[in-house]
Amino acid sequence: MLNSKPYVIGIDMGGTNTVFGVVDARGVVLASDSIKTRKHNDINDYIDELYNETMRIVRSIDAEGKIFGIGVGAPNANYFTGMIEDGVNLPWPTPVPFAQLLEEKFGIPVAITNDANAAAIGEMTYGAARGLKDFIMITLGTGVGSGIVINGQLVYGHDGFAGELGHVIVKRNNGRLCGCGRAGCLETYCSATGVSRTAREFLEIRTEPSMLRDIPVDAITSKDVYDAAMNGDKVAKDIFEYTGKILGEALADFTAFSSPEAFVLFGGLAKSGPLLMKPLVESMERNMLSIYKGKVKVLLSELKEADAAVLGASALGWEAKPRNVADHPSSVQAAPQA
Amino acid sequence: MLNSKPYVIGIDMGGTNTVFGVVDARGVVLASDSIKTRKHNDINDYIDELYNETMRIVRSIDAEGKIFGIGVGAPNANYFTGMIEDGVNLPWPTPVPFAQLLEEKFGIPVAITNDANAAAIGEMTYGAARGLKDFIMITLGTGVGSGIVINGQLVYGHDGFAGELGHVIVKRNNGRLCGCGRAGCLETYCSATGVSRTAREFLEIRTEPSMLRDIPVDAITSKDVYDAAMNGDKVAKDIFEYTGKILGEALADFTAFSSPEAFVLFGGLAKSGPLLMKPLVESMERNMLSIYKGKVKVLLSELKEADAAVLGASALGWEAKPRNVADHPSSVQAAPQA
Repeated sequence: MLNSKPYVIGIDMGGTNTVFGVVDARGVVLASDSIKTRKHNDINDYIDELYNETMRIVRSIDAEGKIFGIGVGAPNANYFTGMIEDGVNLPWPTPVPFAQLLEEKFGIPVAITNDANAAAIGEMTYGAARGLKDFIMITLGTGVGSGIVINGQLVYGHDGFAGELGHVIVKRNNGRLCGCGRAGCLETYCSATGVSRTAREFLEIRTEPSMLRDIPVDAITSKDVYDAAMNGDKVAKDIFEYTGKILGEALADFTAFSSPEAFVLFGGLAKSGPLLMKPLVESMERNMLSIYKGKVKVLLSELKEADAAVLGASALGWEAKPRNVADHPSSVQAAPQA
Repeated sequence: MLNSKPYVIGIDMGGTNTVFGVVDARGVVLASDSIKTRKHNDINDYIDELYNETMRIVRSIDAEGKIFGIGVGAPNANYFTGMIEDGVNLPWPTPVPFAQLLEEKFGIPVAITNDANAAAIGEMTYGAARGLKDFIMITLGTGVGSGIVINGQLVYGHDGFAGELGHVIVKRNNGRLCGCGRAGCLETYCSATGVSRTAREFLEIRTEPSMLRDIPVDAITSKDVYDAAMNGDKVAKDIFEYTGKILGEALADFTAFSSPEAFVLFGGLAKSGPLLMKPLVESMERNMLSIYKGKVKVLLSELKEADAAVLGASALGWEAKPRNVADHPSSVQAAPQA
């Protein structure tokens, strides 16, 4: 072990909050805090605040000079280039060389990847995927993200953009319009937003009573659908059936790609219990090629929600290598061996 | 180089013929021949004949004792277990421990994988994918097979069955029945057989004249459709448009998985030229997530058809490691380093 630098920093940049923490090699979050992601219109101001606040918690646990690397999970972040390529929800212009800017500021090597990949690395290092060499992380949040691990390694693809399974087309004709500009993407059906859209469709097409009819149709959230289903509402239960069926069909197809040992589900929707899991697993098994049937587990994330994003990002910190040593001589140190 | 064992044997087991050859490190096929795959009802008789005929050509080029390993491409062959798991077209019962049987007979380490994976390894070692670390081989034959290479390594998955992209569902509703027992698989549309099926559908639904109407409808082959299209037949050209469109949609989705640098197409249909390639590439680009557009090449196999299968299988021979040394002490030798 590299005893002189026993900690990593994990940074999870969300659309609203940027959460950061100091983590040790066993995955214990020793200190963490957050800042608002969208407070500054100049990225340099954002990075200044992130640096000051992060170093404050680093000092609070006497970890200055003991940070091996920094790992960042951020939307559309590219592992190879260190760029945030397309910041739909960010107040500053993109693309931006985020890893390099952070590395120059901290004088510590930085590795970045998108949030779903960071979650996969976290799950492999500390969570439900410990010991698995072949699994696919599916994050079910506002959108659907994925992180693919094959033979113990995260799949980045030739350009760093592999693993966009939320944008596989599941309805080729007459599919729902997606934020990506296309139609029929998995995430338009199986994200939290997708569940809301399904609710609106079902309530319009069907005539039976439902608790969901008491909520203004445009305000229905996936949580509302969950609550109604748990109270026995038939329409709400059918919405989960429909969501699980489509996700199961998609997972069956994904299996034909990398034949994973497991899918690991993460995010709010993943916590819907049997409401989602039962139709999902049934649909996956029914739609699978026979050689895969009964062999692929569907697991739930084991990372504590509050820590998950930071843990996932921090695990990447152990892979960080100096990007441009000339710019930060203070960071000269042994890079982790491949 | 391991000068004392400078050759490998490549064996390609097809439904009709089993082709075998002796190959050197530069990919030159020094000698080759074939036997009938289905002549014997006992696998031991098949292996005896394969051994005798292979050793005959080995001796003919004075290569006895100079064979480093044997690589085999066979349908449903599993790299990890060495088994042929399901021999739909084979006269002997399966599963059968094919690698072990061959290794005991030859006293030489044997590695086996399915035919599409063997083709991918061959293409990476000697063909269009030389120098590529991330590509997907798509074989367009009687069926559709695939071999996926990520970061320079073939993807086997946790059980050896990764890469069955011919059985991804491309028509979820009302899709064509597939030999796998399901419906709507890619191979029911984009294989040579799929093209014949499309021809039958188009000729029944459409009314305009076509050269293809001169052929008994159940006898139309993909070659007939190709010939008609090259002679300007509108229906035949539309059949290729349709095939290319569906394959392009599928490749766009596959890209979201591993973000490959290229797809490499192999097999009879792949040689249809712009008839297939033009609609395929247009459809792929139109259906891709924007971050991938304009970045993924579609290449044709560069392996000489007569040699391709043997070359692909033989390339795997360099990876062969003794499976069970006790059974064949004559094979004790340095295994290739990882």
